[in-house]
Amino acid sequence: MSELAVKAEKLDAADELASVRAQFILDDVVYLDGNSLGALPVSVPGRVEDVVRRQWGELRIRSWDESGWWTAPERIGDRIAPLVGAAAGQIVVGDSTSVNVFKALVAAVRMAAGSGRRDEIVVDATTFPTDGYIAESAARMTGCTLRPVPPAGVPDVLGDRTAAVLLNHVDYRTGRLHDLPGLTAAVHAAGALAVWDLCHSAGALPVGLDEHGVDLAVGCTYKYLNGGPGSPAYLYVRRELQSRFDSPLPGWNSHAEPFGMRPAYEPAAGALRGRVGTPDILSMLALEAALEVWDGEGVSVDAVRAKSLALTDFFLECVASYVPSGQVESVTPVDHAERGSQVALRCSDAGDVMKRLIERGVVGDFRHPDVLRFGFTPLYVGFGDVERAARVLGELLR
Amino acid sequence: MSELAVKAEKLDAADELASVRAQFILDDVVYLDGNSLGALPVSVPGRVEDVVRRQWGELRIRSWDESGWWTAPERIGDRIAPLVGAAAGQIVVGDSTSVNVFKALVAAVRMAAGSGRRDEIVVDATTFPTDGYIAESAARMTGCTLRPVPPAGVPDVLGDRTAAVLLNHVDYRTGRLHDLPGLTAAVHAAGALAVWDLCHSAGALPVGLDEHGVDLAVGCTYKYLNGGPGSPAYLYVRRELQSRFDSPLPGWNSHAEPFGMRPAYEPAAGALRGRVGTPDILSMLALEAALEVWDGEGVSVDAVRAKSLALTDFFLECVASYVPSGQVESVTPVDHAERGSQVALRCSDAGDVMKRLIERGVVGDFRHPDVLRFGFTPLYVGFGDVERAARVLGELLR
Repeated sequence: MSELAVKAEKLDAADELASVRAQFILDDVVYLDGNSLGALPVSVPGRVEDVVRRQWGELRIRSWDESGWWTAPERIGDRIAPLVGAAAGQIVVGDSTSVNVFKALVAAVRMAAGSGRRDEIVVDATTFPTDGYIAESAARMTGCTLRPVPPAGVPDVLGDRTAAVLLNHVDYRTGRLHDLPGLTAAVHAAGALAVWDLCHSAGALPVGLDEHGVDLAVGCTYKYLNGGPGSPAYLYVRRELQSRFDSPLPGWNSHAEPFGMRPAYEPAAGALRGRVGTPDILSMLALEAALEVWDGEGVSVDAVRAKSLALTDFFLECVASYVPSGQVESVTPVDHAERGSQVALRCSDAGDVMKRLIERGVVGDFRHPDVLRFGFTPLYVGFGDVERAARVLGELLR
Repeated sequence: MSELAVKAEKLDAADELASVRAQFILDDVVYLDGNSLGALPVSVPGRVEDVVRRQWGELRIRSWDESGWWTAPERIGDRIAPLVGAAAGQIVVGDSTSVNVFKALVAAVRMAAGSGRRDEIVVDATTFPTDGYIAESAARMTGCTLRPVPPAGVPDVLGDRTAAVLLNHVDYRTGRLHDLPGLTAAVHAAGALAVWDLCHSAGALPVGLDEHGVDLAVGCTYKYLNGGPGSPAYLYVRRELQSRFDSPLPGWNSHAEPFGMRPAYEPAAGALRGRVGTPDILSMLALEAALEVWDGEGVSVDAVRAKSLALTDFFLECVASYVPSGQVESVTPVDHAERGSQVALRCSDAGDVMKRLIERGVVGDFRHPDVLRFGFTPLYVGFGDVERAARVLGELLR
């Protein structure tokens, strides 16, 4: 047994989150793609079956009240809230991340417009593409210009014209963790609003939305929150801004009296102003079940973050030991303060290498053009998995 | 046994769709709320369990390819297409009806803008509220004015300024079926685009989108299509218009090369240009299973329409016989050409009456301020159900 395998065993033995793995359906595959689609929590299949067979099949329409369907978007929002450092009443679940980016950015521009001529949206130039595409549409439809800037350069371009800034907390490709507190403060100093995309951070590390005064935030729930394929995204609107939140998608679910069927729109109070149409109940209640894992003894965002850093540290150590020098280059920052919960390795023929890794039972993913991406979900990934993944990668590249 | 009960038995015995009822999970309740939430098809629970346990739980990320998740929006769109008279390649499934109304209306205004100064959106003044709210937002964001007009009055207000007209095929409250061919032709004669909301018609009666040259259409799938609570909506874009469809929600799923991760947006060809973000797979694949009932021998939109009219005719006959004169007044047109698949009865204390009906095992719904609404899904509602519903209503109002 190699020295690293022995170390992995020791780390696993000391891991206080190790027992949480039993709350997920896993097999002998090393699953390092939870940053794309989280594994299936044990609690989900039974819940979904109950939702389908009893709530839909037997109660039918009565379930909108009796099974709590109607209030699910805000109820589940309140379940996500503590995971991103938000007090209750500021998050609603529903729609896709893209749609929520649109709501958040347009609403941010409208709020900023109250304070002078602000007609520029600044967007992370390295963003996951959909945020950029949607930001372009939001800019076009609000008469703004769009300015793509790498996150580090954002403070330099902020000014009187800046309406809103859309940033990713963790870069989807490199795994770089951006400085949410510092950048938010800089945006505020310029009198603009900060909109954060938490897709690659929520559930993996502390976010601190309330503490850092973030204005609006969005995120998906199918990565580190394990909500299932295409489970609904969420929208955070800081409490102080809710009365001015002016949605570009004012669907009937966000009306003050949705069943009044009134011809004139009057927005509801609070976070549910961010709702739009009828929520997709199957996906939403699967997510609700998936979030129960966070109720477990000792399961906390801080514990998850500590293990996440230990996992990625150990992976980098194993890669350095097992992979021949020069074959891969990590594009993920070494500094903990700048690292999310993934490691991205630049590698020639990355697409082909990932295919062979998957054949060998190590599942990560490939990001165009040359990145091997490995996500570490501390709730179910162990140090033995990490050692094996690096070992197999080394064998393939030797 | 009353004369009407005998008649119901005869009608049920002659009903060629009677056997389809066995493909739904039902009980001894008379369920006349399928126009709000369709009953559970027998095919759904097993499919959902497979999607959760095997596709998500075992294959995990591989299912985006191997289980056909990625292409589900257009594949299931093609399943819906024949039900609304559309050739393949013109419908994508995803998002809520409200979000699709926004896409359709903004895109329609942008297409109309090419042909002169067209800056007015005409909307059905009696619409289900969300369409009106979203139309107001679409108008605001495209620099248009919004003009609410009752459907019958639409031809009189069309002109050089009209960009797009948003209409409901069937009125959600009264059950009135509007003249889709005639109104579409009038809209086209004025050089504008016709956008139809099919929520209350798709799956209950022929729509004929292609035949009548409808430009854009949206609809939900949880009513007569039985997709389940909050199952995703759909968007139809007529083939000739697809290359000019300019979405206000250009999410990465609608990119020509979604996994190219390119910073510049380039729309895909065809209907999938209407996609936005990651599709909600659980709800979407439940819908796919639910649509299989339409593959059955003898199940067709024409057969469904014939039975629907027979059911609503018979319900009106039973109500006239059982309910004391003057207690209710039908607001649903008697003329078949103007009737959808529901009957709406105006009634004092309608909210309370519906509550008591439900206690007696007859489920319809109440629409503010004074309407009892009964929806008839021909796939699973029988003539005996109809007779019983009217009889119980009569007993309550006597």
